[in-house]
Amino acid sequence: MNELSLLEAITQRASSHWTLEPAPKSPVVVSSRIRLARNVEHLVMPQFQNEDQSQNVLRLIREASDPILQTEGLAFYKINELDPLDRQILVEKHLISPEHAQDQSRRAVLISGDEKDCVMINEEDHLRIQTFFPGLQLDQALNRANALDDLLERNLPYAFDEKKGYLTACPTNLGTGMRASVMLHLPAMDMTQQTPMIFQTLFQVGLVVRGLFGEGSEAVGHFYQISNRTSTGIREFEMIQHLSLVTDQIVEKEMATRRKLKLEAPLRMKDRCGRSYGILQNAAILSTKEALERLSDVLLGKNMGFFSDEEIAGGLVEYLISAQPGFIQKQNTKKMNEEERDVVRAELFRKICKRRFCDV
Amino acid sequence: MNELSLLEAITQRASSHWTLEPAPKSPVVVSSRIRLARNVEHLVMPQFQNEDQSQNVLRLIREASDPILQTEGLAFYKINELDPLDRQILVEKHLISPEHAQDQSRRAVLISGDEKDCVMINEEDHLRIQTFFPGLQLDQALNRANALDDLLERNLPYAFDEKKGYLTACPTNLGTGMRASVMLHLPAMDMTQQTPMIFQTLFQVGLVVRGLFGEGSEAVGHFYQISNRTSTGIREFEMIQHLSLVTDQIVEKEMATRRKLKLEAPLRMKDRCGRSYGILQNAAILSTKEALERLSDVLLGKNMGFFSDEEIAGGLVEYLISAQPGFIQKQNTKKMNEEERDVVRAELFRKICKRRFCDV
Repeated sequence: MNELSLLEAITQRASSHWTLEPAPKSPVVVSSRIRLARNVEHLVMPQFQNEDQSQNVLRLIREASDPILQTEGLAFYKINELDPLDRQILVEKHLISPEHAQDQSRRAVLISGDEKDCVMINEEDHLRIQTFFPGLQLDQALNRANALDDLLERNLPYAFDEKKGYLTACPTNLGTGMRASVMLHLPAMDMTQQTPMIFQTLFQVGLVVRGLFGEGSEAVGHFYQISNRTSTGIREFEMIQHLSLVTDQIVEKEMATRRKLKLEAPLRMKDRCGRSYGILQNAAILSTKEALERLSDVLLGKNMGFFSDEEIAGGLVEYLISAQPGFIQKQNTKKMNEEERDVVRAELFRKICKRRFCDV
Repeated sequence: MNELSLLEAITQRASSHWTLEPAPKSPVVVSSRIRLARNVEHLVMPQFQNEDQSQNVLRLIREASDPILQTEGLAFYKINELDPLDRQILVEKHLISPEHAQDQSRRAVLISGDEKDCVMINEEDHLRIQTFFPGLQLDQALNRANALDDLLERNLPYAFDEKKGYLTACPTNLGTGMRASVMLHLPAMDMTQQTPMIFQTLFQVGLVVRGLFGEGSEAVGHFYQISNRTSTGIREFEMIQHLSLVTDQIVEKEMATRRKLKLEAPLRMKDRCGRSYGILQNAAILSTKEALERLSDVLLGKNMGFFSDEEIAGGLVEYLISAQPGFIQKQNTKKMNEEERDVVRAELFRKICKRRFCDV
């Protein structure tokens, strides 16, 4: 696959890794992610680089990764070589951070065609190795991240301290340099006001909760990211065991609450989910936020058994991407403003409903 | 047709006269109605009757109408012989007044199978002869009311004064005893805040505006009844000419406003109408008020061309009746409370959408 077509395939499709494979613990666990922060010995850290130093770092990493591009199905892009819209879609797909899409001349990315691997180069650290899997598969994600980490390390000596572990730009990443996270859909626990207390408890066991787009973002559509707060004092496999265990408990609680809601207020739930479906099916103006909220209801309704296969046959999670502004803009060659995107988004979701959520 | 089946046919079907025939000036003019107030000479007026006198009046009118029952396709019912639910449905179909459904032992009704004629007996006056037609057909309604009036007068000498005209319980009905009214659907004029000024103007030309269920009722779903305020000093045909002319002007104004809205805010209109359709199609809980509001949007959207025949092929006005509590109760043998009716109503409207609004 040549590099252009790999990127085009990624930015033109809403579906990716996390929608086309079986997803354990779905529909509550949307996806699992591992991120390893790594820095190269003797190179200036990104925040202290001048322009020349940045270009040098990009060149070195480009050369070091060259041997594995072909074998691992990876492509290397400097961020400023990408179309701004494609950068936005990579953010919407959670492949790169919003920050990484900025200050583009100093940054690059290594990305795999299946969207399971994405290495941000020169973000906060020299390397941010990320792997993504559908559902609850933190162990799979860690294995894959470790393998990629080993391949890169062959040609890139990492900054490592026997006592402190991997040296990182931010002290919260010292140690393993790992952040493990899961994306959860918790509509029933939100409806029954259980989330605030749960999130407090999570904090007490070293975990942190964020919205759909990471730090400071809103939990639109009842989607939450849960991850470890620090990466010292605990080994990688122990941390993902801990997070998986906690996630299992949350999944059980969410599913029990769904069963309770369906038992105690079946009509109220069916009404809520049905109306949202009817609106996706018929609206002519649809904002990103409303689309996510309606999709959230439809996901819940599908899980509660309120929709037949004639209404919804396909998966639903990929359509969270379809609702995003960049993805909507990508459907149209003419540059659109927000109002125009709301109209194209409504048209797209009318089509999606007609196709029974089977493809985009 | 025997008398029971005539009543059953009326109370079991939502459709009636005003939905199955061509309706001039639809979709703005839903229906036309003529009502003639008449009293029989030398008989005590309803409000002053004791029980014996009431029964005497009912008996006299029953006997006087007997010769025309067969020829005119009419049936005679004492109100207290009717099931309370059927009484309620007669009110919902606007065939009798809410007051007439009360104090039932003193009251009766003459009703035709096509629901075009309905004579309330011993309501405020001895006779309230009413005729109903779809769309704007006040002249047809007056002709039919006059014919029925003549037939009844053969055996019932009316209280009439050369100067005052027909003598009635309430002075506002003195003179011709006629009230002509049209039911209008004015969503576009409501959306653009034109109705308050129009209604003020109507008052100045001797007309009065009421909501869907007459005096004091709310104008749910942008439905309004317009009728003459008094019945003296102007002959019947002049009054209906006046009301028809005014109605024509309102129809033009409403249609012009619809065209303007469709031209200037096509997506906002399509969005509003589409969402209402989607909710009727998918809700699991639906109140009467919401059903009428959603139907109002769907009627407007159909007229604006937002729905294909695959979505809505049939008429829509009869479904205003389908939404009413009595009609919903009639679908079920078990006595239901409001919440239960909201569920049955939602089920009914889901079916109606599936059948493309083609029948109930």
